[in-house]
Amino acid sequence: MKQKLSIVKIGGNVINKSKELDKFLHDFATLDSLKILVHGGGRKATEVADAMGLEAKMIGGRRITDLANLDIVTMVYAGLLNKNIVAKLQSMECNSLGLSGADANVIRAHKRIVKEIDYGFAGDIDAVNTSAISLLLDGGITPVFSAITHDKKGQLLNTNADTIAAELAKGLSDQYEVELIYCFEKNGVLRDVNDDNSVIEEINSSVYDTLKKKGIINEGMLPKLENCFDSLQNGVHRVILGPPELVKNRRKKFTTLSI
Amino acid sequence: MKQKLSIVKIGGNVINKSKELDKFLHDFATLDSLKILVHGGGRKATEVADAMGLEAKMIGGRRITDLANLDIVTMVYAGLLNKNIVAKLQSMECNSLGLSGADANVIRAHKRIVKEIDYGFAGDIDAVNTSAISLLLDGGITPVFSAITHDKKGQLLNTNADTIAAELAKGLSDQYEVELIYCFEKNGVLRDVNDDNSVIEEINSSVYDTLKKKGIINEGMLPKLENCFDSLQNGVHRVILGPPELVKNRRKKFTTLSI
Repeated sequence: MKQKLSIVKIGGNVINKSKELDKFLHDFATLDSLKILVHGGGRKATEVADAMGLEAKMIGGRRITDLANLDIVTMVYAGLLNKNIVAKLQSMECNSLGLSGADANVIRAHKRIVKEIDYGFAGDIDAVNTSAISLLLDGGITPVFSAITHDKKGQLLNTNADTIAAELAKGLSDQYEVELIYCFEKNGVLRDVNDDNSVIEEINSSVYDTLKKKGIINEGMLPKLENCFDSLQNGVHRVILGPPELVKNRRKKFTTLSI
Repeated sequence: MKQKLSIVKIGGNVINKSKELDKFLHDFATLDSLKILVHGGGRKATEVADAMGLEAKMIGGRRITDLANLDIVTMVYAGLLNKNIVAKLQSMECNSLGLSGADANVIRAHKRIVKEIDYGFAGDIDAVNTSAISLLLDGGITPVFSAITHDKKGQLLNTNADTIAAELAKGLSDQYEVELIYCFEKNGVLRDVNDDNSVIEEINSSVYDTLKKKGIINEGMLPKLENCFDSLQNGVHRVILGPPELVKNRRKKFTTLSI
């Protein structure tokens, strides 16, 4: 029987709030199963860019990563946020280790091919090095992933944290029974984005298609759910979405996906 | 018989020069033995602090690390520099993994006790977690240490990279035959600091005492050599000092220490 592995993605909105982040990390630290944390970036990269007089370049809500901004996300995601999260988890007796995709070559990517938009140094994932991750997990270590990857040719790349979580889940499903948990500021996938009680508790592929057609699933949620269904189709045991407390406490409503 | 382990410290002056750094990393990547890299910070932290309008606080040539500056060294040392070095080593087929002391709790420290000067969030090392480092080394992974540690209570700390190298060397000497190599911008310990040909090739404890008394060993070199002799007295097999090419090529003169 495969060992259980929880892969938890925590979004930028929790990262921004020190008390909420601490509470989440406490919950995460006490998870019994093997576990992996993937964290987003939050506001901090923009704050540092602002302080350095650099303009953040966005097109359609997505960051354009030129070299100066790549340096900033590398500093903030893989340095400041990742190491502070690791230090906090260590204080909670969770033996964590922070990673970018370059470390032990755990996630190899390529610079996104330019079609209509040049996203700059954005990385699309090619491969997950499961043996290096297993070495850590089997050694009692909890990997903490920042949203930075590399191309194995010396170039770091800025990479979507949701996608990192999904690709890790897919890659590790051969060896582990993977539960993928997306934590964000809502109670789950909502029927009405303004009503946090309108959680859709079960979404299967056909419900998903209907929700998409009706426009109930909004723009920000679409790529997240595409990642989720892709991971379910590739061996991931379970995918759930909801607020940070979902890691520990499943008494309230949340969203479960199935195919 | 113990396995050989090379621990190489590379200073900030090489980190600052992209071509020299690449050459050094190529040499390091081809080392046959088990190996660990420890890197200093260089000018970059000061540049980022300047760009953010923060004043670097120095007393007697040593950085005073207030909270704002701790964030900056965490970003620059553990993020920007560490991840770029790891990505470069990966491109050279050296399977490296970047670490702060918080990662896998590899180096625990405490905030320096305030005596005459309050150094702020500067860390003095308490313990090296050799089992976590061995797990990586035995897994074919080359650890790359940035000069950031933690106190196991959630606080990151800025820590001298020379001291990190020496403490790692001491801690790992029970298990490995450790060679500690300090690479810096000079050809070794110099009799005349302005003459790069005046390398003192062999320094033992009594020669060291004489050189100190005569004032031949200057201020910057004193703490480095204190670290070196301390590590030799604590089981480190060999300590050598010289230019970056020393990692690969020992045809020119350099300094060897003995007790």
